[in-house]
Amino acid sequence: MIKAESSLEYLQKLFILPDTTDKFMEFGLAVLEMIYDFFKEKKGLHKKITLPELAQIFNQTSIPEGPYLIRDVLEEIREKVTVHSVMVASPYYIGHMTSAIPYYMILLEIIIAALNQNQVKIETAKASSFVERELVAWIHRIIFERDEQFYRKNIQNHRVALGNVTSDGTMSNLTALLVAREKALPPDKSFPGVRKAGVDKALSYYGYSRMVVLISQRGHYSIRKAAHLLGLGEENVISIPVDMSNRIDISALKRKIKNIKRDDLRKGKKTKVMALIGIAGTTETGNIDSLTELGDIARQEGAYFHVDAAWGGAALIVDEYRSLFRGIERADSVSVDVHKLLYCPMAMGIVVFRNEKDLGHLKQFSQYINRRDSVDTGRFTIEGSRPFACLKPWASLKILGRDGYRLLFKQANEATLTFKRVLEESENFEVLNHPELFILNYRLVPPFVLEKFHAWEEKIKARSNRNEITELTRKTRKTNRILNALNVQLQKSIRQEDTTFVSRTTLESTRYRPQRIAVLRAVLINPLINEDILKRIVSTQNRIGLRLMDHFEPHLREAIA
Amino acid sequence: MIKAESSLEYLQKLFILPDTTDKFMEFGLAVLEMIYDFFKEKKGLHKKITLPELAQIFNQTSIPEGPYLIRDVLEEIREKVTVHSVMVASPYYIGHMTSAIPYYMILLEIIIAALNQNQVKIETAKASSFVERELVAWIHRIIFERDEQFYRKNIQNHRVALGNVTSDGTMSNLTALLVAREKALPPDKSFPGVRKAGVDKALSYYGYSRMVVLISQRGHYSIRKAAHLLGLGEENVISIPVDMSNRIDISALKRKIKNIKRDDLRKGKKTKVMALIGIAGTTETGNIDSLTELGDIARQEGAYFHVDAAWGGAALIVDEYRSLFRGIERADSVSVDVHKLLYCPMAMGIVVFRNEKDLGHLKQFSQYINRRDSVDTGRFTIEGSRPFACLKPWASLKILGRDGYRLLFKQANEATLTFKRVLEESENFEVLNHPELFILNYRLVPPFVLEKFHAWEEKIKARSNRNEITELTRKTRKTNRILNALNVQLQKSIRQEDTTFVSRTTLESTRYRPQRIAVLRAVLINPLINEDILKRIVSTQNRIGLRLMDHFEPHLREAIA
Repeated sequence: MIKAESSLEYLQKLFILPDTTDKFMEFGLAVLEMIYDFFKEKKGLHKKITLPELAQIFNQTSIPEGPYLIRDVLEEIREKVTVHSVMVASPYYIGHMTSAIPYYMILLEIIIAALNQNQVKIETAKASSFVERELVAWIHRIIFERDEQFYRKNIQNHRVALGNVTSDGTMSNLTALLVAREKALPPDKSFPGVRKAGVDKALSYYGYSRMVVLISQRGHYSIRKAAHLLGLGEENVISIPVDMSNRIDISALKRKIKNIKRDDLRKGKKTKVMALIGIAGTTETGNIDSLTELGDIARQEGAYFHVDAAWGGAALIVDEYRSLFRGIERADSVSVDVHKLLYCPMAMGIVVFRNEKDLGHLKQFSQYINRRDSVDTGRFTIEGSRPFACLKPWASLKILGRDGYRLLFKQANEATLTFKRVLEESENFEVLNHPELFILNYRLVPPFVLEKFHAWEEKIKARSNRNEITELTRKTRKTNRILNALNVQLQKSIRQEDTTFVSRTTLESTRYRPQRIAVLRAVLINPLINEDILKRIVSTQNRIGLRLMDHFEPHLREAIA
Repeated sequence: MIKAESSLEYLQKLFILPDTTDKFMEFGLAVLEMIYDFFKEKKGLHKKITLPELAQIFNQTSIPEGPYLIRDVLEEIREKVTVHSVMVASPYYIGHMTSAIPYYMILLEIIIAALNQNQVKIETAKASSFVERELVAWIHRIIFERDEQFYRKNIQNHRVALGNVTSDGTMSNLTALLVAREKALPPDKSFPGVRKAGVDKALSYYGYSRMVVLISQRGHYSIRKAAHLLGLGEENVISIPVDMSNRIDISALKRKIKNIKRDDLRKGKKTKVMALIGIAGTTETGNIDSLTELGDIARQEGAYFHVDAAWGGAALIVDEYRSLFRGIERADSVSVDVHKLLYCPMAMGIVVFRNEKDLGHLKQFSQYINRRDSVDTGRFTIEGSRPFACLKPWASLKILGRDGYRLLFKQANEATLTFKRVLEESENFEVLNHPELFILNYRLVPPFVLEKFHAWEEKIKARSNRNEITELTRKTRKTNRILNALNVQLQKSIRQEDTTFVSRTTLESTRYRPQRIAVLRAVLINPLINEDILKRIVSTQNRIGLRLMDHFEPHLREAIA
């Protein structure tokens, strides 16, 4: 690249919008064309370039000298970055929660960057602080449905916060569990509380041997991360089994709590159940816990009740989904991501608290901002500087409206059912979850194996010969181990061919439980998905699967023999 | 607003870029015009609208029904949001670290939003993962200056991470202190370490009564927040006095550590000095601690050494600033914000670790992403989903180059010195810090008071009459209390008039120490600042100050009499 000149005059011109729109439009068009090219090219979803090849491209070990012309750097971005980016917007890319976004989001990003407000304090964010509070109230209301008077009173009441805008779901969950920790170990008489004194002093003051967080096996890894950060220890996140629908097993949960109490009696020291966590829906399978029952148990145990609805929560915009989330209004707090079902660009989370005073536990002050008498949003957040990201969901909820989101969710739901049907019709796949929120788990199983599985299942049910049951179980397990290897290989080959994409995980909540099953995972929220596309995805995977069978069939035949 | 139709076809069209650029350009132009209008209008920096008035505008307590036309929502944003936003890009707005940004940042935001990569994993972020690692290596190198071989080996080595891209400086500091905590309380024999077992078990295993973090009084409130989050307790952040240059007082620090040890001996239980924190530069005054000495003490005490260079760190791009930061290369980790001296939009931080293995302490895994054998960036970060924000500093370092940033910092430095001179020439202001990194603290003091202060100071130095010294000290304090009230009022009136803006804080590190002095605070990094503008800012503040003197002069005369 040719080095550009550098002078203060040149730099100053960069810091104001050009006098005419022409110059800006020229670059704007170049950028748009780059993006058009990206979306049009047929180089595959993840691109053929290998990771070692990319490592060769991005191997400059110190800051380039520069300066270079904007035009040249944009060209460099086109050549090196955009062409090797993942095409998450493609309807053939159904592997993760990252999907297409409406193009007006780009317009909103332009506004956000140009205004460059910092949400941390009113002196750097005026109207935008109020937009944020309004949006948080909307999300609070679809979840907790408190009365009009509550929202009238609190929507712009700077003394309290109904929730925080965070950088993502992980930060939302962390914020919620931090509040839970403060509420479990509050100031008392001469004890200043966990916030001031720390976890060790607080546990000892309250006579607890430890504090635990209970969540199902489908829990997101951010909960373990939060327990790590908050000094509770990862081993105090207790994993509860799920049922076949990937919902927390309520009896197992109750048994666990009972066992904890029994052990406490034996040891003579109390375990504090700090929080129960419900999931709506799970990252891997999209299913929703029985929130009503979880709420009851939490109340009974005096535990904080948080619902991780980072994935599903936004569905509550639409009344039709309400019944799935029954009980969510009992939660103390709920996380919702806007870059998932609200179709906003990466990344923004929201965490809302039923009790408007709960975030008061995190209130903090400093001399130069967030003074005690201030109205600054930053008094309540874990993050400091924050962008005006809330404009995106705020505007999008107006542009799409509840009607628009209703249609998007309907389309996603239909796409999920269609995909399930197409998979089942192909007869080479086995569907492994009951999809609730647009996520489907399945795997490649050749028909001759599936038939055997059915036959064995019948036999196990019918017979009582213990040896035979043991033998069939052993054979099932062995066959599944081969199928696991097959499906891991299938997903890798799909990625290699790169015309379609699904992700992969491991589940034990299937008909083969407790054996862990490698499953393919599809997230079907891209509104550009249609039946043709889904058929092409399945036939591609079928074709790749058949090819792999050359190697796997003999092993499978042997296992089921 | 008129309700728009809602159909799947309409929605699907929103999710792809329009077939021709025309439609997009039409909206793009509308958005640009909105921004032009915003920058051109003369309604003041914070706008006259009051907070209660804004509360009336943003008081819709539930999600609007919609859908509305994009055009209408953009118009609503113009009317309600942009016109009431803070004009942080104005050179008359010199109150906070939020400044003007180069306009190409907007182009980069367009690319980031359109690609919508999620940095958490390689399956959703391909080239962008490599861009991030390259940028992190650049920042690592300007700080730690390790040899070429080190960077060759690690720049794209997915087994390690030289640092993390975070959502802001608060998250960078939190990441660093989390690593410090893990290193202070590691796994050992049968003990699984603080990460698994929690803070209480770890302190008890290692026989520590508590863990403390030492930082100067100028420390950012995010450090206290981190101690809160990490379960160490806010009261274990120990605040060390600063000298007149706002640098940590090294003797006071040594005394503190000695006292801690003496107390430990008395109590029979050891305090672990978890971390020493250096600041480069402080949020309130821009000054830089003596990092070499801090590094020595940290090594001596076996403490982790973190440098919070969220504000100043980026100055190391330019060799001229290197000497100010002497010793920073001894740090275990350093935080740098890109939305400050790298002039990127809100918000992004970086934290780099001298030892490439240190972030290994945070490594985490899950089944569906960040698998053990993965190359995913998300294995090392506190946040989960993250945007491709690193493209902005990466491209900006090329477009401006070291030369460009050198000019920007030179201009900022000159603006700071010019502002100091103009303030001193006006004779109504007293400058209260030695600016190092573009931040100036000053206050309004009428000449007749300043003369008295000088006279009293001479007397106190010269005389030894204890009673007289006590009397003069009492009078100084009383006068300063009135000046504090005057300057608080001045800053409020400046905000009210709204043609210029400086912020305000309270310092004890002035010639009047230990008395706390209310000071005005200017951050002079906007490259559009010039001497004329600075003179107008000073004359405005002078004029407002004179008006306030009607009320304050009699009180001041009485106090100095």
